[in-house]
Amino acid sequence: MENVNKTKESFVKVTDSFWRSRMDVVRDQVIPYQWDALNDRIPDAAPSHAVENFRIAAGEAEGEFQGMVFQDSDLMKWLEAVAYSLENDPNPELESQADAVIDLFEKAQQEDGYLDTYFIVKEPEKRWTNLRDWHELYCAGHMIEAAVAYFKVTGKSKFLDIVCRFADYIDSVFGPEEQKLNGYPGHQEIELALVKLYRVTGNERYLNLSQYFIDERGKQPHYFDIEKEARGDNRKFWWKDDYGYLQAHLPVREQTKAVGHSVRAMYMYTAMADLAKEIQDESLWKACQTLWDNVTKQQMYITGGIGSQEFGESFSFDYDLPNDLCYTETCASIGLVFWARRMLEYKVHRDYADVMEKALYNGTMSGMDLDGKRFFYVNPLEVSPKTNAERKDREHAKPVRQKWYACACCPPNLARLIASIGHYIYSANDQEAFIHLYVGSQTELDLAGQKVLFSQQTNYPWDETVNIKVTPEHPAQFTVAVRIPGWCRKATLNINGEEIDLKACLKDGYAYIHRLWTSGDQIELYLHMPVERMRANPKVRANAGKVALQRGPVVYCLEGVDNGADLHNIVIPRETEFNVEFKQEFLNGLAVITCKGQRINATLWEDDLYSYREDQVEEISITAIPYYAWCNREPGEMMVWVSEK
Amino acid sequence: MENVNKTKESFVKVTDSFWRSRMDVVRDQVIPYQWDALNDRIPDAAPSHAVENFRIAAGEAEGEFQGMVFQDSDLMKWLEAVAYSLENDPNPELESQADAVIDLFEKAQQEDGYLDTYFIVKEPEKRWTNLRDWHELYCAGHMIEAAVAYFKVTGKSKFLDIVCRFADYIDSVFGPEEQKLNGYPGHQEIELALVKLYRVTGNERYLNLSQYFIDERGKQPHYFDIEKEARGDNRKFWWKDDYGYLQAHLPVREQTKAVGHSVRAMYMYTAMADLAKEIQDESLWKACQTLWDNVTKQQMYITGGIGSQEFGESFSFDYDLPNDLCYTETCASIGLVFWARRMLEYKVHRDYADVMEKALYNGTMSGMDLDGKRFFYVNPLEVSPKTNAERKDREHAKPVRQKWYACACCPPNLARLIASIGHYIYSANDQEAFIHLYVGSQTELDLAGQKVLFSQQTNYPWDETVNIKVTPEHPAQFTVAVRIPGWCRKATLNINGEEIDLKACLKDGYAYIHRLWTSGDQIELYLHMPVERMRANPKVRANAGKVALQRGPVVYCLEGVDNGADLHNIVIPRETEFNVEFKQEFLNGLAVITCKGQRINATLWEDDLYSYREDQVEEISITAIPYYAWCNREPGEMMVWVSEK
Repeated sequence: MENVNKTKESFVKVTDSFWRSRMDVVRDQVIPYQWDALNDRIPDAAPSHAVENFRIAAGEAEGEFQGMVFQDSDLMKWLEAVAYSLENDPNPELESQADAVIDLFEKAQQEDGYLDTYFIVKEPEKRWTNLRDWHELYCAGHMIEAAVAYFKVTGKSKFLDIVCRFADYIDSVFGPEEQKLNGYPGHQEIELALVKLYRVTGNERYLNLSQYFIDERGKQPHYFDIEKEARGDNRKFWWKDDYGYLQAHLPVREQTKAVGHSVRAMYMYTAMADLAKEIQDESLWKACQTLWDNVTKQQMYITGGIGSQEFGESFSFDYDLPNDLCYTETCASIGLVFWARRMLEYKVHRDYADVMEKALYNGTMSGMDLDGKRFFYVNPLEVSPKTNAERKDREHAKPVRQKWYACACCPPNLARLIASIGHYIYSANDQEAFIHLYVGSQTELDLAGQKVLFSQQTNYPWDETVNIKVTPEHPAQFTVAVRIPGWCRKATLNINGEEIDLKACLKDGYAYIHRLWTSGDQIELYLHMPVERMRANPKVRANAGKVALQRGPVVYCLEGVDNGADLHNIVIPRETEFNVEFKQEFLNGLAVITCKGQRINATLWEDDLYSYREDQVEEISITAIPYYAWCNREPGEMMVWVSEK
Repeated sequence: MENVNKTKESFVKVTDSFWRSRMDVVRDQVIPYQWDALNDRIPDAAPSHAVENFRIAAGEAEGEFQGMVFQDSDLMKWLEAVAYSLENDPNPELESQADAVIDLFEKAQQEDGYLDTYFIVKEPEKRWTNLRDWHELYCAGHMIEAAVAYFKVTGKSKFLDIVCRFADYIDSVFGPEEQKLNGYPGHQEIELALVKLYRVTGNERYLNLSQYFIDERGKQPHYFDIEKEARGDNRKFWWKDDYGYLQAHLPVREQTKAVGHSVRAMYMYTAMADLAKEIQDESLWKACQTLWDNVTKQQMYITGGIGSQEFGESFSFDYDLPNDLCYTETCASIGLVFWARRMLEYKVHRDYADVMEKALYNGTMSGMDLDGKRFFYVNPLEVSPKTNAERKDREHAKPVRQKWYACACCPPNLARLIASIGHYIYSANDQEAFIHLYVGSQTELDLAGQKVLFSQQTNYPWDETVNIKVTPEHPAQFTVAVRIPGWCRKATLNINGEEIDLKACLKDGYAYIHRLWTSGDQIELYLHMPVERMRANPKVRANAGKVALQRGPVVYCLEGVDNGADLHNIVIPRETEFNVEFKQEFLNGLAVITCKGQRINATLWEDDLYSYREDQVEEISITAIPYYAWCNREPGEMMVWVSEK
């Protein structure tokens, strides 16, 4: 491969106690377990068949394709997670497992470059006939993402070559020319993958193809109608007969509200932000900003969860944020992290990094238990096990985390996010280094013509202090910009023990420190972290009269195991004081909040259902733990938004 | 017909301002509109085809059966409503319309007595092959109810003869004998109808058949499995593979919790109470009481609505009473009224009459607009039009009343309830007259061997005073028992101006006045009716921290048209005082509640979604109207349970 772009992103070594423990779990539990699952070696789970499908496509096994139409993507997300994991934790055995799978890909790949086992093995004649509902381009996207990651980490180009052939073939099939299919995917994903492929190869065809998919989307006459007619299908599209489910109801630049399937939306917005930067497209950037504001200021849960309804795993409408009926898929919050990261690439602004951090410490991490063995797809902010078990309208939200599902999107998606957490901490241009997240880590950034070593030490998000050591090879003028989080009312920044005037250097939520940096310079950032009573915009029906406890970026919840049943009867008085205690041995180590509160006493009621009698309250002690850590002990109720009086 | 039992129930002339206006609407709007609908003469509605199906079955028209498998029942409920309406409002033209329909029935009835147009016209070979899902016995039940009502009001026996022939035939098909079908209906209804038929004819076969259906239900081996196998059907039953949907999961005497389809449950419990009385079956009565307590003390909304979920239009579980996701079908509350009335027949106790009254003034009447032109099937206690319109999990609950539906169960059911309201007010045995409801009316009851005229005058439920004039033909000793409602904290009872010691004569919530009654005796009952802040049992998640306003039996709600949007931000302070004003010209005349309250002010928030800022409240004036009267002005939000602080 000649045209590979040699600029590698900086390697970030993660040493953080919070994230390192998650990465360990991914390395030691999730990746091996998923490998077994992908190879149908989990006794009590339905077989994935994902590897077997490739063996069949490669001619190494006989049999039928089994699994979802997008079964390939599970394997691709696993490979991508493996790549990122190898970055911080080299592991020759794991790498050779991956190499063996890649060899299979090579054998399975068709003459023309095509590579999707469903359509190779099961329905070859249906290739590209239903972009709307099947996931060919989606699977291709995940394959490309995995290949790019694997190449960057290992330097091995075989997988990258495979996906380039595939992408070249896709480019020969899709495009504006009359003889090509003028279509685009029903599940966005390849758009962002093609930008990654462009960045690593420098081949502009991939960028152009990504742009084509984005630009073409939602135009009239509608491609999904055209291909539907070609299939002789005259059924209405199941989602209100509306392509908003796929964010294809309008050209993307005309979209102002997040609608439809939230994961699809996130992947598309991510690609839009990527493209806005790469082609410096102002109109695309404007659309990104408008959609960002809609998602994060009108349709996002305080946990960074998105997708307020189970129907279509979708957004509903502004301020409709029920805590118990939401979908808030783990994958959607992961997608929000992707998107936020890309927004930061275009423009450094706290708005993006704050949301990225919020989703990272809350709505994504809640998807996995502390052992990495069980997963939530759906992450509601309020769970009552009996309600979730017995009400049909709640059946999508399981009261406890489940093992690997038949549709295994979330666990491998979480694995690749966690394994690549290092990619979200820093960014840099020639003269400026940005620190977006406070995560114990080291990295070298190219600044002012030299390598500058950054070393963060912190017990964030539990401690209020972050130490960053800046080590240039030789003294030089450049800028280090550190984020002052929006949740923080009082921050202090010292350089080598001397306080900086934050107000003077603050821009868009980052403190820009321009100076002559010398080896050993120390940045000490102090972020005051009292327990905050967060309130929701009064337009949110579900949270009227309620507060959520938040400390730093971490959103807290009450669990039945600490606070008893019927959490809805607990009231946090306005004047109560909160105590915070870090407990090293508890739930992998975390800060616990306790306070005095009240509970409406049910004993007086006997068996009346309604009465004019007055409520009686009892004084109680309330314990709150981080939302992400709930459901790691005995199952029970959970509640983020608690009544306040 | 020889064996017709001559004891007619007492005719009750209703003069009440509240109920007379509802009866007028039924007479002038609902019955004529439904007649047009049943005859397919409503231009913008799907044709009912109900009358046409009978014409085809009678050989008077050509064509196919159209409509639901239970389409016949719409016509039967209409006929029953017509009968009751004729009782208070004779109308020869209407009666001749009914007679013409009955003539059709005679012609359509088969040689063997069978009479169901679906199985006569469309699938004659499938008669009695799927009792579980099809509604043959249900339709037969409604036909019997209509015929009994029509006979009692008009004295004409043709319709009664038709249903007796049908019932005799059914009795020849079903029963414990080996050569008979040992089955029972999937939708209960005929059980209660057969008791009515027994009461009017004195023919014990009908009582025995009803008892058979009730006793056989839920036994193992399960009839629905047997008939399923006979059909060669091996699919699982759609409702969790559980016959609880049809209350056939257990023998009825072993059922302790209300489960499944709430209308089916009500009709069955009604029949159980009927049978418990007729055959003096203690075990059946005990089951009724247990189920009554479960429904009314654990699964009932404050409006008398029942059925907490859309799935299966069913009960969910104890204390699961979400205000926005409920089904609370109008027909289910109507069924609750039927059941309560039967419980009172077995045992006079305030518990039954209070619930009957609650459902009558709230959860049933909410089903119809004040003009009788539009109907709610689903009666939630909280509606936000945008939410109900846009969220899939709320789509069963329409934000405004709709016209006659394709499945037209509720409007004719309401019509028959309202037209027969007189039947719910009084009951009597030889020595005791019971006054269950306070409704302006006159009736003659057989007491102490003579006719005693009772005449009620009241502006209930708005006024606190009820005057009851008791006029025996000659002075005599007997008892008049008047209900002291459970909602009333302070009641006074005068006889001819002299106060009675209520405590001394109170039993099970009724004041028993035993004395020598003389023509012109006056009972004056004063029921103190302050606005009560009702609270729900703390086990009800949905109502934590909330109150509902109730005055007398009437439950109030807040509407957007009076209180602005975002009703969830309104708070009723604990110390606020309520004003009550009766407004004659407003919404047909009703008492309006106003008070001072607070509203969380949204203007401070600008575009933040979450913040640590304090809430700000503004002082507002709150207006509440009776729940049944909501959605008679411009559409908007509605809320019964309001935050309290």
